[in-house]
Parts: sequence; structure tokens; C-alpha cells
Amino acid sequence: MMKLLLINGPNLQLLGRREPEIYGSETLPDIVRKLRCEAQEFGFELEDFQSNTEGEIVSRIGETLGDPEIAGIIINPAAYTHTSVAIRDALAAAAKPALEVHLSNIHVREEFRHRSLTAPVCLGCIIGLGSYGYSLALRGLVHHLQTSDSAVARTADTV
Amino acid sequence: MMKLLLINGPNLQLLGRREPEIYGSETLPDIVRKLRCEAQEFGFELEDFQSNTEGEIVSRIGETLGDPEIAGIIINPAAYTHTSVAIRDALAAAAKPALEVHLSNIHVREEFRHRSLTAPVCLGCIIGLGSYGYSLALRGLVHHLQTSDSAVARTADTV
Amino acid sequence: MMKLLLINGPNLQLLGRREPEIYGSETLPDIVRKLRCEAQEFGFELEDFQSNTEGEIVSRIGETLGDPEIAGIIINPAAYTHTSVAIRDALAAAAKPALEVHLSNIHVREEFRHRSLTAPVCLGCIIGLGSYGYSLALRGLVHHLQTSDSAVARTADTV
Amino acid sequence: MMKLLLINGPNLQLLGRREPEIYGSETLPDIVRKLRCEAQEFGFELEDFQSNTEGEIVSRIGETLGDPEIAGIIINPAAYTHTSVAIRDALAAAAKPALEVHLSNIHVREEFRHRSLTAPVCLGCIIGLGSYGYSLALRGLVHHLQTSDSAVARTADTV
Amino acid sequence: MMKLLLINGPNLQLLGRREPEIYGSETLPDIVRKLRCEAQEFGFELEDFQSNTEGEIVSRIGETLGDPEIAGIIINPAAYTHTSVAIRDALAAAAKPALEVHLSNIHVREEFRHRSLTAPVCLGCIIGLGSYGYSLALRGLVHHLQTSDSAVARTADTV
Amino acid sequence: MMKLLLINGPNLQLLGRREPEIYGSETLPDIVRKLRCEAQEFGFELEDFQSNTEGEIVSRIGETLGDPEIAGIIINPAAYTHTSVAIRDALAAAAKPALEVHLSNIHVREEFRHRSLTAPVCLGCIIGLGSYGYSLALRGLVHHLQTSDSAVARTADTV
Amino acid sequence: MMKLLLINGPNLQLLGRREPEIYGSETLPDIVRKLRCEAQEFGFELEDFQSNTEGEIVSRIGETLGDPEIAGIIINPAAYTHTSVAIRDALAAAAKPALEVHLSNIHVREEFRHRSLTAPVCLGCIIGLGSYGYSLALRGLVHHLQTSDSAVARTADTV
Amino acid sequence: MMKLLLINGPNLQLLGRREPEIYGSETLPDIVRKLRCEAQEFGFELEDFQSNTEGEIVSRIGETLGDPEIAGIIINPAAYTHTSVAIRDALAAAAKPALEVHLSNIHVREEFRHRSLTAPVCLGCIIGLGSYGYSLALRGLVHHLQTSDSAVARTADTV
Amino acid sequence: MMKLLLINGPNLQLLGRREPEIYGSETLPDIVRKLRCEAQEFGFELEDFQSNTEGEIVSRIGETLGDPEIAGIIINPAAYTHTSVAIRDALAAAAKPALEVHLSNIHVREEFRHRSLTAPVCLGCIIGLGSYGYSLALRGLVHHLQTSDSAVARTADTV
Amino acid sequence: MMKLLLINGPNLQLLGRREPEIYGSETLPDIVRKLRCEAQEFGFELEDFQSNTEGEIVSRIGETLGDPEIAGIIINPAAYTHTSVAIRDALAAAAKPALEVHLSNIHVREEFRHRSLTAPVCLGCIIGLGSYGYSLALRGLVHHLQTSDSAVARTADTV
Amino acid sequence: MMKLLLINGPNLQLLGRREPEIYGSETLPDIVRKLRCEAQEFGFELEDFQSNTEGEIVSRIGETLGDPEIAGIIINPAAYTHTSVAIRDALAAAAKPALEVHLSNIHVREEFRHRSLTAPVCLGCIIGLGSYGYSLALRGLVHHLQTSDSAVARTADTV
Amino acid sequence: MMKLLLINGPNLQLLGRREPEIYGSETLPDIVRKLRCEAQEFGFELEDFQSNTEGEIVSRIGETLGDPEIAGIIINPAAYTHTSVAIRDALAAAAKPALEVHLSNIHVREEFRHRSLTAPVCLGCIIGLGSYGYSLALRGLVHHLQTSDSAVARTADTV
Repeated sequence: MMKLLLINGPNLQLLGRREPEIYGSETLPDIVRKLRCEAQEFGFELEDFQSNTEGEIVSRIGETLGDPEIAGIIINPAAYTHTSVAIRDALAAAAKPALEVHLSNIHVREEFRHRSLTAPVCLGCIIGLGSYGYSLALRGLVHHLQTSDSAVARTADTV
Repeated sequence: MMKLLLINGPNLQLLGRREPEIYGSETLPDIVRKLRCEAQEFGFELEDFQSNTEGEIVSRIGETLGDPEIAGIIINPAAYTHTSVAIRDALAAAAKPALEVHLSNIHVREEFRHRSLTAPVCLGCIIGLGSYGYSLALRGLVHHLQTSDSAVARTADTV
Repeated sequence: MMKLLLINGPNLQLLGRREPEIYGSETLPDIVRKLRCEAQEFGFELEDFQSNTEGEIVSRIGETLGDPEIAGIIINPAAYTHTSVAIRDALAAAAKPALEVHLSNIHVREEFRHRSLTAPVCLGCIIGLGSYGYSLALRGLVHHLQTSDSAVARTADTV
Repeated sequence: MMKLLLINGPNLQLLGRREPEIYGSETLPDIVRKLRCEAQEFGFELEDFQSNTEGEIVSRIGETLGDPEIAGIIINPAAYTHTSVAIRDALAAAAKPALEVHLSNIHVREEFRHRSLTAPVCLGCIIGLGSYGYSLALRGLVHHLQTSDSAVARTADTV
Repeated sequence: MMKLLLINGPNLQLLGRREPEIYGSETLPDIVRKLRCEAQEFGFELEDFQSNTEGEIVSRIGETLGDPEIAGIIINPAAYTHTSVAIRDALAAAAKPALEVHLSNIHVREEFRHRSLTAPVCLGCIIGLGSYGYSLALRGLVHHLQTSDSAVARTADTV
Repeated sequence: MMKLLLINGPNLQLLGRREPEIYGSETLPDIVRKLRCEAQEFGFELEDFQSNTEGEIVSRIGETLGDPEIAGIIINPAAYTHTSVAIRDALAAAAKPALEVHLSNIHVREEFRHRSLTAPVCLGCIIGLGSYGYSLALRGLVHHLQTSDSAVARTADTV
Repeated sequence: MMKLLLINGPNLQLLGRREPEIYGSETLPDIVRKLRCEAQEFGFELEDFQSNTEGEIVSRIGETLGDPEIAGIIINPAAYTHTSVAIRDALAAAAKPALEVHLSNIHVREEFRHRSLTAPVCLGCIIGLGSYGYSLALRGLVHHLQTSDSAVARTADTV
Repeated sequence: MMKLLLINGPNLQLLGRREPEIYGSETLPDIVRKLRCEAQEFGFELEDFQSNTEGEIVSRIGETLGDPEIAGIIINPAAYTHTSVAIRDALAAAAKPALEVHLSNIHVREEFRHRSLTAPVCLGCIIGLGSYGYSLALRGLVHHLQTSDSAVARTADTV
Repeated sequence: MMKLLLINGPNLQLLGRREPEIYGSETLPDIVRKLRCEAQEFGFELEDFQSNTEGEIVSRIGETLGDPEIAGIIINPAAYTHTSVAIRDALAAAAKPALEVHLSNIHVREEFRHRSLTAPVCLGCIIGLGSYGYSLALRGLVHHLQTSDSAVARTADTV
Repeated sequence: MMKLLLINGPNLQLLGRREPEIYGSETLPDIVRKLRCEAQEFGFELEDFQSNTEGEIVSRIGETLGDPEIAGIIINPAAYTHTSVAIRDALAAAAKPALEVHLSNIHVREEFRHRSLTAPVCLGCIIGLGSYGYSLALRGLVHHLQTSDSAVARTADTV
Repeated sequence: MMKLLLINGPNLQLLGRREPEIYGSETLPDIVRKLRCEAQEFGFELEDFQSNTEGEIVSRIGETLGDPEIAGIIINPAAYTHTSVAIRDALAAAAKPALEVHLSNIHVREEFRHRSLTAPVCLGCIIGLGSYGYSLALRGLVHHLQTSDSAVARTADTV
Repeated sequence: MMKLLLINGPNLQLLGRREPEIYGSETLPDIVRKLRCEAQEFGFELEDFQSNTEGEIVSRIGETLGDPEIAGIIINPAAYTHTSVAIRDALAAAAKPALEVHLSNIHVREEFRHRSLTAPVCLGCIIGLGSYGYSLALRGLVHHLQTSDSAVARTADTV
């Protein structure tokens, strides 16, 4: 059974405990559990990874290089979206199809959140739909894997 | 039965006929037909509108103001994403929950395509997943309508 | 009897229906009716034109070129204020004295609304006084027409 | 009887003596005299103040804070429009409805004159109509005072 | 007989009537008539299209996609040169060899006229030679068609 | 007894050993020891944390979310001041009153050190007073805690 | 007995009367009185100076050049922080150790308030702690004077 | 017989030898020979000049000042287009009608090639048509000389 | 006997007392005395004015408007060179030939000192020659007055 | 025997496994082994360190402060070259002679890779020569150590 | 007898022949002759050099390095003022006191003429006084040589 | 025997005579002599060329196009690094493998020295190692020639 890797960046470990009246009371483990079920319905195993440390995320992505079991990546780089050339390089090197997710609509926030360093090495982005965005990314990634053979090549092209 | 309005901007009438080996042979009518079925499965009627003229898109969005039948908008503003303050203002005035879709990953294209004038008045964006992005936007919008009462208010806030 | 041309740009057809507790319940026809009366008191006929389409506004302004009956223009270009070189060029070509009106104070809004492409080819601007700004513009334009012979020349200079 | 305060910034004491064939032969005292009459017709007393010194303008505006007799301010900050954070802060602190006037069309002049630091804390601006702009500002301010209770609040919001 | 499509953008319908002492008294129909004759001498039929509306120009260009009769495009996008991503995208999608013409030397005008959004998807530009520029563009396009098989490919490369 | 958390960012472990003739011979443990005493005089326990790793600082701040024992934070983010969106987001999420300290006057150093990404989510900053700045921050934070109930709310507002 | 000079810039004369529910009801004289006592406890006399006029502040600072009684300066340049090269030059010329104070957190306000022209010629800044910031600045300055002989030199270096 | 001066800038001596499969096998002498014939058909003698040295081009242009035999200039400044204020000044001083030619479409190349320092002092530009662009420039210049008396004046105006 | 007006801006009252080993021990009165003698040798009376206050300099310049005795102005605007639109406007309004002097070479100082707001309304500048620059400016101004009738016009043109 | 420290940043652990047809099949251990031999020939021991985590690199560099055995540093900061102020500060604090190496030519890649935050605190850079760049850096560093006594001082100057 | 070197850059060979009604009929040889006489009165020999070629100017300046006969340089780099890093470097290397002259007021011309690359390595500039500026520069340079021993050092400092 | 071409740009003829206590007393001929020996050890003849004139450097590089004897280029473009598009174009046209050398660390100098126009068409750069950088470049180039067949192609790709 092929795997999908879910990566969550800094501060996402606080989901469900931070201003729950706004962000909802769903925690990251809740989201992962739900997403794992959905992945299984599509015939994929979900592996999840959360870290606040840029370098650990870089390492985790690097490990997928040449790992034939990992079919694709769903990543919410959070704050590192806007500052991490290292994660961008890791995604480009790993050459797995990847989708970027943002819970909130980054375009209504500060100017510096409008630029994504990682988006150009992903297939695309799903932005502003809360935790439901992960479910859509799962569907989008699965659809991509089932319909496209050129996924790896297309990602590599973008670098 | 509530309606969802699908708006497609300039040059999207050429889908399926323009470089089909790259963009696929699916035409805009094909996509609309498929999306209409999916909408009906969720209990919504899909109304579609395509125009190359900014002002006509502005007018169509303006007509939804106060139209109780329109529950939300899926919009691919295409080139106007990056230049149209008028469509942004129309979306803000109409105050319907809206999702922005882009077929290609705008972040790997020219610098001027990285800025979206319309995204800040939408709930969010789905980028880079080809025509399947419309299906995900449909799911995302329906999910939003079924779980959130504050949709109108949240959109208005962003202006 | 000389005419004044009132031009309203995109989304202004929604006035009175959009968030009336903020913008008031006065509709665009209400405003036009009131302004027509005021114009007649000054001895001018008021012709009005609203369009959401940049090109139609360009055409309407272009028609005034050499039309001896049109003495001047009051224009609220709305969103096109910030993006339309074409309307700027039309105003410069028509060479009629023109005044720009904005209902809200554009200087407290987004950065991109601080720049006016059309203002440099108008006599001046009236900003932030709601629909009463049209009445002031009417007075300002009439005063200009009655006291200045160099109106056309001065407008042309600014291009 | 309520008062309106007219503030004129640097170099405006030269009006009527500087290139009269262009700016007209009307001096600042002429303008003030005419405006005082017009104010009285609307039931307001006009107090006028001219200074070339930024700090004196700041002080004069500061004195209106809590002065119940001053109903509003008409201000032509001239050169300080583009450089004075201090006058901006004074207007925001005083929290009186204010209208900004410019004799010439600042948008056809140097790039640095296109930015107004003071406009965002005023209700709005009247630009490019010569000394007649003061008369329009008077009408605009009076109309605002007679129709709006939220003047102070709205000004405060903008800061 | 192959056709060449001549497209003229906003305000060009005013040619010959606007400041004739400067722009000459030649009207757009005069120019088209002359160009049609010249085209016929080269063995091409000339089809002409003028619109002030961005979307109509986008549509007209889009119609050439797959139209085997249209051999190439001469376009003066006028004001839209500097603002229209939509016309750029239409030209890129149509994939016909195109030449851009400007009557005046845009490099001696305002800063914002120095950038052309459409030039990168054209073969090249002819700037500053008045209506004679259309004749040169005609020659240039015909020469290109007669000497190059790679026209379509080269245009597509530039996107 | 309530706690205050002292966080020191990258390279601050070198204090006292790096160019002691300039930075003094006081080491970070020296400073912490002194500050701990001062905290106790004000009735607070001081917890200290130093890390060169952005992600560890993010984690440490995240742990204070909902920890009722931590009353506030004194943070010297050092180099991360200018580059870390992740620490900014952590401080905003934790919603504890925080004060930012810089040993040297960052305004006399390179341009890129003039921007603080973290300052907008802190109460304020103390800059350029060497290790004595920590003592002042301690006093400032204690004073804030003793006089203000709205600390948390005010911090949250700033995001 | 050595003196410390306290300088307050434009609009600070309004403290305590402007939106007291936000800024508190403490007036500038209240603050000065309290600070004078605190200075005396440290063995310094406090001289205070407030002006809305940039040039008067420049003059007052200039008078300290060579005045052996003035040991240091606490300055809140308010709006002039962001615009006054003249005050910067005066502080550099006077070559007294100076500390800059801001009542509010300037980093959460408008972009133009993030730049301080005066900070590079001061020892440092204390920002966002309300009127208590003056007390901390007093302590900081006294500590500096008691521990550093190189104060004058270090200030001069920074220019 | 009047002369036209053809000036070619740096690296153009390599034409025909550099990547002939792309740039064609026509050398600069080939082009000059062909252009000389075409000039003679229009009754002009062609003088040609190529240099890799900015100063030599400046000198050659300067020599045309007051030389009654030189009727106009065709110039391909190549790399100096984007960097040479000196050639711009020479063209402005010489006050001969000049046309700028670029073989490739500079708008699809690096950002720094989009700015032309020399274009504002020329009548116009012909871009992207390979060596045929020289022929069109010849025609354009001849047409200008035969129809316009104000050529010199217009060039001078643009400086 | 015609007069020349010498204006010195902020902090120049400190000359000779500030770091005399660098700036020399010559005070401003010393310089004025020397310059007065030199002026008399050329047949002019020298009037001098120093102020730290922008508005007082504006006023003093404004008084020269129409004063037939003032033949020209030598001005060292010091810090206001870089920030004062008001002094620029005053010089433009006064329309007297003016020369700008800077003691130090402003081009080797901070970036913000490289821009002069006042230079464009002066005849020219003398920079970096210490107090001897005033003597050269005197000569330059006298030479200009004796050889040019178009002085006033030329200054006015530049605005 | 003195040591040289080799530091490799993020994603360099993937060398030899990532696109070997481009980057070659040499792994990082291969490179280190070869470099160790070369170092020994010059009489130095090579210590190597690779990390994907910015903070660990900061820590490793910090440990060299005052370590008399470390003579110099060869560093390839990879992605952190462009984003890490912390590594820059660590290098400056450690005050060891350092050389920066980049395998690829960063000047032909994205704009954001053209800026190096770390280069100003190194002796210099070796760019674009693949893994052979490490060998050249080794020679360069050894040469520097053998010929220069002022190495430490010169590095410190650059901060 | 010590020498002064006068260097004139591109297009200055045209003086007196280019628009003499504006620039006067004085040619460069006229100016040099007059300046030579003035130099001799001060006891200096004048050597002059004009070139349109950047590299020749660089070479001529380089020759003065270590030439004990050259006491200083008067340079009008004309267009190269704004583009030549090489002349800047040559002046810095030669380490002779130099004064920069501009005939016209570069501050009223195009934006790109406001920046001088060479000014920071000169003592100062004399701008806008026509050919009389050379005479003032001569006086300024002589005065500098007669009163300052630190000339060479000060120039070197600025690099 | 194959040749390597060494090109040195402006002011490098002064090496050894300019501030020898800083740059060393090695002259350019010294360096060339040493480098020639080293080249011979690797089996290459060294040809050297120094010029202060951009155009001469362009010509010299152009001559290598198609010269089968020249195997590669070592170039120190000095000041032209930052300003010369012409040298960049010459290097790209010549299509020889080239290495860029800078004696000093350009990253610690002025901002405008951080950009290299020539680096993107070279294989790479060696920066900051004094004249020893030439030796390293020689080794780097020889290594490249001996291990890579795709050198020419790779250089061409980068343009």
C-alpha cells in the first residue's frame, strides 16, 4: 500500500487549544485521525509529521527521496511558507508531487504572508478552507496520482 | 433549490482547443456539465457564466446582491485576478461566500501572476489542480455553507 | 441649453442596496434625479451614464470629443480610477473640463486605492463626502465654466 | 454660535502676490473675508489661522481638543500635506471633522505631492478648484455636520 | 487568400478628429483603407477590428485560434498595452505571429507607458512612426510569414 | 508564585566570551542569576531558556499557551528578530504579555536589522542598553502585569 | 547637581486629555512631576521641555552642547521621530547620551512609524510601555552614566 | 546626395558567426551591403559604423552635429541601449532624426533589457524582426524625412 | 545698493563649537563677517538669517517676494535640504536666483542625504568645500546676476 | 595538528542521490573523504559537520569561539546563505577565517539566491565549480592561513 | 610648478556648437584657455584632457597615481557621472583631491541624473553654474590644497 | 598547446602601486608571470589582456569566438562587473567556459558591488582571496576542461 506523507509546520501543534472559538476545537491529532481514514478509503496509508523546526522538516522531506513507498506529500509549512528556502529546496530535491495547504486565507493577512517560497515547487495550493482544506488536498493529490504520470517531471520543471 | 454561480473569466472559452496535449481536450462546456452533476449530488443547482469582459463579470456578480437563491460563487478570474479592482469590489459588495480557482500553478509563472487582487475578498483559493480544482472548490464551498453561518460576515470583514 | 455629463463606473449601480446602514438608502437613480434638478438651477441639462465596462466608459467619453453641447464631465470612475489608462486617455482626448468624485475617502483604504490614474487629466477631485460630493462637483464645475476660458487648454496641458 | 476653524499652511500668505496672472489677484485675506460671509450664511463663525511653522499648526489644532465651540476644521496644509506626521497626529487627536483643500491639482505635479499624510485623518479632500475649493469645503463640512452624528467617531476610526 | 487581422484598441476611433494639427487629419478608416490596399499587393486580405473594450479584443483574438485563414495579427493595444494581462493571454493562446504598433514614442511619455504587457508574446514592436508604422508592421509580418516556418513555435516559447 | 519566562535566541550563549572588551565579561548565566534575584524581589520566579534553534524557541513559547503559571515573557530573539515569522506566530498564539530586548542599538547596524518581525506581537521593546536592558524589561513587564488587566487582549489585537 | 533634560515632541501636551480611557488620565505635568522625584532619588535634577515645533527642539538640544551641567537626554520625539533629520543632527552635534522613548508600540502602527531617524544617534529606545517608559529610560540613562565613560564617544561613533 | 548613418554597437561584429542556426548566416557586412542598395533606391547614401566602444559611438554621433550631409541615423545600440547615458546625450546633442533597431525581441529577455535609455531621444524603435528590422527602419526614416520638417525640433523636445 | 540674502538652516548656529578639530574653529558669525566683506567688494550688501525652524525660513524667503532690494539668495538648508517641501515651495514662489551650499560632501553620508528637495528650484549647488563654499557661492551668484537677465525665469521654469 | 572545520547546510546530505546525471554520483561522504586527504597533505586535520537545522549550525560555529585548534572554516550554507542572519552572526562572533562555497552558480538561479547574508563575514566565496569548489576553498584557506596574520582582524572588520 | 588636471567627459567636445543660444558660444578650447590663465595666476599649470571613452578617462586618472606633479583634479564626468563605477574606482585609487563640476543643474533633469557615482570619491561638487563652475572649482581646489594637508587621506576615507 | 585567456578590467594596471600596504606590492605583470608558469604546468599557454576600456574587452572576448586555440577564459571585470551588459553579451556569444575572479570580497563593499552582470554567463566566481584567486581560478578552469565535455553548452544555457 502506497503512503502519503502529511507534514505540518510550526505552531500547528497548538490547533484546537488556541482561540477555539475562532479556529474550532479540533486538534491536530483529530485532523490526522480523520484524514487517515479518508486516505484509506482512497487506498493510501497516511504518515504524519509535525515539527516546529525547519531543519527537521527538511530532513523528513529529504528522506522521501528515492523512498518508493511515498507517493506524494501534503504540506502546511505555516510560517516557513514565507521564509524557508531550505524547505523549498528539499521539496524540489525529493521530487514527489506535493500540495500546499493553508488553513486561513493568507491573502487577507500581512503583506509578507502573500509570498510563498514553497508554492512554486508544489503542484498547487489549497487556501482558506480550515481543516477541510486537508481533505480537499488529499482528494486533489490522489486525483493527480491516478491521472498523471508526469507528476514528478512537472514538479522538477518548476525549479 | 439553492444555486451556486460558476464564473469563468477571459480566454477560458478556449479550453480544450488550446494546446490540448498540455491542457487536455476537456472543453469548458464539458467541465460545466460535469460540475453541474456534482452540484446536484450535493443538492445545489449550478448556474454558469463566462465572459471575456471585466464589466460583464462585474455586472453578473452585482446581480447576486440580494438574490436569495444564490448561495455562493466559484470564480476563476483568469487574467483579471491580477488586474481587476472592479471584480474585487463586486465580490465584496455582493457579500456571497466565494472561492477562487486557478487551473495552473500561478506561482511558477511570471512575477505579476503571484499577486491576486480578488483572493482577499474570497474565502480562499484552489490553485494548480487543473479542472479538478473546480470539483474541489464545489466541495469546499458546499462544506463551508453547511458548517458556517458566518460566511457573509467573514467575507465582508476582509474588505 | 448646455449639458453636463455624469459618468459612474463599476458597482455604483448597487448604491442604496449595498449595506444601506453604511452607504445610506439613496440609490443611484435618486442621486441622479437630485443632481439633475441642481444642474437645471444652474442652467445646465444633466446627462447620466453608468457602466461596469471600462470600454463603454471610454466610448462614452470619446463621443464628447467635438460635441459642442457637452460643457463638462463629472466622473466617479470607481475601481477604474486605479487601473484604467484607457479612461485617462479618453478624458485627455475629449479635452472637456472634468471633475473626479469619490464617495468614500480613498486615502483610508488599501494602498492601491491611493493612486489615481485619472486625476491628472481632470481639473481636480472631491473625495470622501458621500453622494453630496456630486453636488459639490456640480457647483465646482459650473463655477469653473463660468469663470475660466482656458479650461480646455489647462486640461490638455496636464497630459 | 458654533465656529469653523480655517487653517492655511506654508507659503499661502503669498497668495495674490505670487504670479497673479496665474494664481489670480485674490489674497488670503480676500479669501478669508469671503469665506467668513459664506460661513455666517450657514450660521457658523469662521476663525482663521495661517502659519508657515508646522509646530504652530500642530498647536492650533491641539487647542481645539475639547473646545466645544469648534465644530469642524477646513485645512490646506500646503507643503506639510506631504511631510507632516505631526499635523496628522494633531488632527487625529483633536478628533474634529476636518476637510482638506488643495488649490492646485496635486496629481499633475511632482510624484512626492501625490501622497497625503493628512488625508487619512480627514473626512475627505477637495482638490484643484482654486480658492473656490474653500467654499465647497465649507458647504461640505456644514452638510456633514448637519447630517451626521458619527463624525467624530468616523474620524477616529481612520487612525 | 490568407488574411491578416488588424486590431486597434481604445480611443483609436478618435484618430483624425483629435488635435489634427498634431496627429494629422487621417482617420482610422483612412488608415485601414490604405493598409488594405498594401496588404493586397502582398497577396493578403486585411480584416480590421477596433474596440474600446478589453474583453471584445480578447474575444476577437480568441476567435483566431484554429482559424486557418488568419495568418497573423497587427495590433495596437493602445492603453491596454500597459494594463491587460487578458490580451496578453489571448495572444499567447491564439499562437499567431503578431506585431505590436504604437503611433507615438511611448518611451518619451509617462513612466507607466514604458512597460508593455503584450510585447513579450508578440514577434516584436514598431514604435513612434505614426500611422506609417502600420505599413512597416505589415511588411514586417509578411516578411516573417514568407521566411519563417517556426513562427507559431517562437511565439509560444515566449510565454 | 507566578513565573516569568526569559528566552534568549541564537549566539547569546557566547556572551562574556565574545569580544569581552566590548560586550563585557558578564556571561549569560551571570545575567540570568542576577535577573532571577531581581524577579524574586518583585515576587516572581524566573525560568530561563536559551536556544540557537528557531523551532525550539517556537516550541518553548507554544508550551506557555494555557500554562497558568507563566505570567509573561522577556525575549531577546537576536538574529531571529529579523527573520522568524514562526516565533512571531508563536508569541501571538501564546497570547502572553511579552517584552522584546536587544543588547545593542539595532538601529545603528545593517539595514536588515532595523525591521523586527516579533515586535508587533510584543507589548514593546527595550533596545541598546546592554544586559541592563533585561532588568528594565523585568520592571516593565512586572509594572504591566500589576497595572493592566487587558494585557492578553491587547497583545492579541496586534496580530 | 547634574541635570537630565527631558524633551517631549508634538502633541504630547495633549496627554491625559486625549481619549483618557485609552491613554490614561495622567497629564504631561503629572508625568514630569513624578519623573522629577525619581530623578532626584538618583541624584539628578530634571529639566523638562515640550514643544510642537521641530526647530525649537533643535535649538533646545543645541544649547546642551558644551553645557557641562547636562549629563544626558531623555527624548520622546513623537511624530518627528520619523521625519526630522534636523533633530537627528542636533542630537549628534550635542553628543550627550540620549535615550528615545515611545509611549505606544510604534511597530503595530502604520508602516511609516517603523523607521526612526533619531534612534541611530541615541543609545537606545524604550517602546510601548506607556508613561512608565520614561521611568525606565531614567533608570537606563542613570545606569549608563554611572557605568560608562565612553558614552559621548559611543554616541558620536554612530553618526 | 544626402547620407544616412548606420551605427551598430557591441558584439554585432559577430553576426553570422555566432550560433548561425539561430541568428542566420548573414554577417554584418552582408546586411550593410543590402541596406546600402536599398538606401540608394530611396536616393540616400549609407555610411556605416560599428564599434564595441561606447566612447567611439559617442564620438561618431557627435561628428554629425552640424554636418549638413547626414540626414538621419539608424542605430542598434545593442547592450549600450540599457546602460549608456553618454550615447543618449550624444543623440540628443546631434539632433538628427534617429531610429533604434533591435534584432531580437528585448521584451522576452532579462528584465534589465526592457529599459531603453536611448529610445526617448529617438523617433521610435523597431524591435524583434531580425535583420529585416534595418530595412524597415530605413523605410521609416526615409518616410519621416520626406514628410516631416519638424524632425529635428521633435527630437530635441524629447530630452 | 542691492542685497544678497544668506540663509542658514538648523544646527548651523553650532559651527565652531562642535568638534572644532574637524569642522574648524570658525563660528557662523565669523563666516558671515568674512562673507559680508567679500559681498561689499562685489558691490552687494549681505543680509544674514539663521533659524532652526523650518517655518521661519519659509517666512524669511517669502518676504523676498517682490522685495526689489534682494538680488539673490545663498542658502544652506542643512537638514531641511532633505525633508522640506515647504522651503522648496518658498524658494519657487520667491523666484529669486538662489544657490545651495553644503559644508560637507553629502554624497559620502547616509543615503537619505543624497536627495535634495531644494536643489531643483535653485540655480545650482556647491558641495563639500567647507565654509569656503559660501565664498564660491557668492562669486557664483554675483557672476550669474551680472551675466544673465533670465535668472528669474530660469528658476521659475524648474518648478 | 590544526583543524579545519567543514560545514554543510540543508539538503547537502542528499548529494549523489539527487539527480545524479546532473549533480554526479559523488556523495557527501565521498567528498569529505577526498577533502580530508587533501587537508592532511597541507598538514591540517579536517572535521566535518552537516546539518539541516540552522540552529545546530549556529551552535557548531559558536563552539569554535576560543577553540585554539580550529584554524578556519569552509562553509556551504546552502539555502541558509540567503535567509540566515543567525549563521552570519555566529560566523562573525567566532571570528575564524571562513570561506563560503556554492556547488552551483547561484547567479543563474532565482533572484533571491543572488544575495548572500553570510558572504560579508567570510573572507570570500567560491561559486559554481561543483564539489571541486571545496578543494579550491581548502587551498584558498590554507594559503590565507600561511600568508596572513591579520585574518581574524580582517573578518571582524567586515561585520 | 605643480599641475592641476582638468578632465572632461563625453559630448563636452561639442560645447559652443550645440544649441549655442542656450549653452552659449564658448567652446571647450575657449574654456580651457581661460581656465589655464586663471590657474597660472594661482601658480598652477593646467593640463587638460577630454575623452568620450570611459576607459581612456580611467587610464588618464590612473596615470596620476604616484605622479608627484599632479596636485589635484577637476572633473566633469558628464554622462559617466551616473553610470561609471570604473571612473569612481580610478579616482579612489589615484587618491588625488578632486572636484566634480556639472554645467547644468542635474537636479532638474531626469531622475537617473540625480545620482552621482563619482561624487563620493571627490571632495565635493559645483553644479549648475555653466562654464563659470570650472573657475569656481579651480578656486575651491586651490583653496583646499593651500589649507589642508589631509586631502589625500580624506578622499581615501570616503571609499 | 591550448591557450587560456586572462582578462583584467579597469584600474587593475595599478596593482602593486596602489596602497601596497593593503593590496600588497605584487604588480599585474608579477601576477601574470606567476600564472603563466602555473598554466604551463597544467599544459596550457596563458595569454593575457588588460584594458580600461569596456569596448576593447568586448572585442578581445569576441575574437575568441570560433578560435579553436582558446580553451577558456579567466576574467576579472573589476568595475565593469556591475555595469557592463556588453561584456556579458560578449561572454555569452563567445561561448567559452569562463571563471570570474574578484580580488576583494565585493560583498563587504557598497551595495552596487553585490550585483554581478557577468557572473550568470560564467561557470562561477572566486571572490576575496587576493591574487591567489587567479591561481585557484586557473585550477578550477583546468579541472572543468578536463572533466566536462558539456562546458560550452552549459554556458550557453545560462543566457
